[in-house]
Formats: sequence, C-alpha cells, structure tokens
Amino acid sequence: MEPLSKAGQKWVRSLHLKKNRDQEALFLAEGEKSVMEGISVFASYLEMVIALDSFALKIPDQFHSRTFTVSPKELEQISELKTPNKCIAVFRRSKAVLLENGLTIALDGIQDPGNMGTILRLADWFGIKQIVCSKDTVDCYNSKVIQSSMGAIYRIPVHYTDLITYLSHTTLQKFGAMLNGTSYKKVNYPEDAILVMGNEGKGVRPEIEALFDVSVTIPRFGQAESLNVATATAILLAEIVS
Amino acid sequence: MEPLSKAGQKWVRSLHLKKNRDQEALFLAEGEKSVMEGISVFASYLEMVIALDSFALKIPDQFHSRTFTVSPKELEQISELKTPNKCIAVFRRSKAVLLENGLTIALDGIQDPGNMGTILRLADWFGIKQIVCSKDTVDCYNSKVIQSSMGAIYRIPVHYTDLITYLSHTTLQKFGAMLNGTSYKKVNYPEDAILVMGNEGKGVRPEIEALFDVSVTIPRFGQAESLNVATATAILLAEIVS
Repeated sequence: MEPLSKAGQKWVRSLHLKKNRDQEALFLAEGEKSVMEGISVFASYLEMVIALDSFALKIPDQFHSRTFTVSPKELEQISELKTPNKCIAVFRRSKAVLLENGLTIALDGIQDPGNMGTILRLADWFGIKQIVCSKDTVDCYNSKVIQSSMGAIYRIPVHYTDLITYLSHTTLQKFGAMLNGTSYKKVNYPEDAILVMGNEGKGVRPEIEALFDVSVTIPRFGQAESLNVATATAILLAEIVS
Repeated sequence: MEPLSKAGQKWVRSLHLKKNRDQEALFLAEGEKSVMEGISVFASYLEMVIALDSFALKIPDQFHSRTFTVSPKELEQISELKTPNKCIAVFRRSKAVLLENGLTIALDGIQDPGNMGTILRLADWFGIKQIVCSKDTVDCYNSKVIQSSMGAIYRIPVHYTDLITYLSHTTLQKFGAMLNGTSYKKVNYPEDAILVMGNEGKGVRPEIEALFDVSVTIPRFGQAESLNVATATAILLAEIVS
C-alpha cells in the first residue's frame, strides 16, 4: 500500500464530473459500508481503493496492491461527501446487455438522486433484472444515488437510452403509472413486462404514455395531491412481483 | 402589513429550536407552496405570515393584518432553509384527540426527517386518521419533515406518547412490520387497526414487538439487505387500505 500521489488525487477528483466518469466508464463508491460491500460483491470491477492509514488495514489482503492511502485532509479534498468518511473505491462499470425477459423498470426523467437510489434499492429487494432510463434521468453513478441505493448499484444493471425508441421496439407489455388509469390491483401482469415511472413533477411525457399497453393508478383514499415516485414504485412492484 | 420588528425576527428564529416550538405549541412552514396551502386549509391556526415585500401582495387580503414584511437578507436570517425562499408562516398546532377507530400508524423511533415526511404524505394519500409516535421519534414539526410532507402536516394529527403504554391499553389489533413475520398479503386486516413501523436501523424495540397481534413481512425476491421504512410503509398501507 502506497500513498496516493497528487496526480492520483487530482484524477479521483476529476471523477466527480459526470462527463469524466462516463468517458472512463468508472464510478466512485464512498464510505465504509458501500466500499466494503463493493469489494465483496463487485471485486472483479475494482480499480482502486483509497483509504485513511487508520482504515487501510481493514481492506482484505488481496486488494492491498490496489489500495492507496491518504491523510484525512486529502480524503476530505477528494470526497464528494460533506461528512468525513474513511475510504473511497473506484470501480469499472459492468457492461450488461439489455434483457428481453423478466420485469424491467423504465424511468422517464427521474431527477432526484434520493428517488433514484431508493428505486435501485427496491429493484434489488424485488429481484428486478434491469432499469432502463431516458437520457435525461439523473446519473445513477451520482454519489448520492450510490449512497441511497445501499449496494444495489453493484447488482442492478442500469441502461441509459432513448426511451421512446426502446419502448417502441420491445415486444414486452408496457405498464405505465398514471394518475387516471386502471386501479393497479385489477390488472394482470405477465412475468415479462416493463413498468414505466415518470418524472417527479411532470409525470411521463405524452409520447411515452402513447406507448403504454395499460395505464395503472394507485387509488387515493385521502387528500394528498400525489405520491412520491419512489413510494409509488414500491407499491406497484410489490403488487406485480408477488 | 408592517415590517417585522427585530424582536419579531428574534422570536421566529427562536422557533428553530424544538424546545421553544413545543413550549409555544407552534410550528413554522416555509416556502410559497407550503405557506399558501397552510393558509388555505389550516387558516384558523394561522398566527403570522412573514413575506418578502415582493411576495406580500400574493397573500390573500383577509390575512394582511397578520402579515409582516422582511428584506431578503432578514428572511435569510430567520429561515431554516439553505435555499432562499419568499415566505414563512407561523401556525398554532391543532389539538386532536387520540382516536380509537380507523387505521392508525404507530412509529417506534423513526429518525430521518425525510422518512417522517414521506410517511405523513403517504398517510394523507391513504386517508389514515392519525400517527402515534414514540417520544424518541423525530419531531414532525422539523422544517425538513414539513417540507417533505407536502401539506400533510395540516391534515394528519401526529401524537407523541409513551408507545408501550399506548399499545398496551388500546383494544385495536396491532400489526407490526418485521423481517420474519407472516407474508403481509396473507393477513386479514380489520378496518380499525394499528400498523407499527420501527426505527431505520434497529427496527422495533422488543418490548413493542411483544405487543403485536400479528407480525407482517414483505417477502424479498432479490438480494437487498432491507427496505427503506417509508417504502415499506407504502407497500403495507396500499395492501391494508384497499
């Protein structure tokens, strides 16, 4: 284990920018829990671990040749988090192929990193095979998404694509969450299907809605104006999967 | 409409502290959407509106005698939010009595303001009558809770009490969310019941679990370690209410 060079520190900081992360097909995981889980379940994609001296010995031996140490001040400078932490890992992204079976979640313009992370975590709980996002959906390799995904980022493939083209060409049945569709409990869901969820404020775009086979709705019994998109996804997944 | 005095500004700032809010039985709502909804649905509890000069004229006439103006700099100083906003309202808290019918949500030590706000919003969507919290549950009058509740704070009564005493004395059936209970879809829920949700990391305390009539579980189909408490609440409410 060697100290991380100044050039190395600069490089890690450069990965805070989506453009650079995308170009190198890498992402950063921060914090003890997230890094340790990544090392354990995503080891073949590990590029580098950066750790405080005091923490470095907790990294399993086989990764020591890829572990670099930093001072608390250096870690603070290369971290994306406000609260101090002990380690950062750099992972290569897995290259999954788009699947045409099982349940897929499609996201049309989700903006909030917390919602994206929660949806990833839900997908991981319910055994969803993949998430397909419109290009304007928040970056799943954003540090807040990775944190709130609770390790799901290592297990659930996320694709960014032109959602209209994708939904136009798939033969899978498409179910879209809307405010005025059929009650979601009255619908039969096949095993292979796509559940489409829309943007927090605007919902799904009309061009996407036009591609739905069935619009589904969670009935309201009280007075709230709307449900949060992650909680709506939870309710729909629980019904579709079970 | 008069400018808010220095003493008035100091008083509003004092309400950032839970102790002071509790003592005066007041709470603050910030931001245009939250303030305007409060004025509209919770008008009889309105104590005072504080607004930028540029915004004050949007406040309906009948509230002008209770509207005070501030400069952008003053608003920044009395606001709890980091991002600038246009207005703050001070409301008295409603004094609801504990109900013994309908569906009640009981929270045992929820800590995250975002989760609390999301659960309030869910309660408002599903027509839940009240939320009963253990004394160590996050304050529902916390500014982050009020923001994420999307107006639900005006409609859903929240009680803080000794949860063990409350659950011991009620005759309602108690359903508790656990990791190893009966599948939640295989349970019959009466109309009058209590759904108990536990702390984000530790779940419900053993003394509370001992009071459950039925422990319910959301089956896992994938590999995530756990579900977020607000998404779990969403899934359970959707099943119980419909």
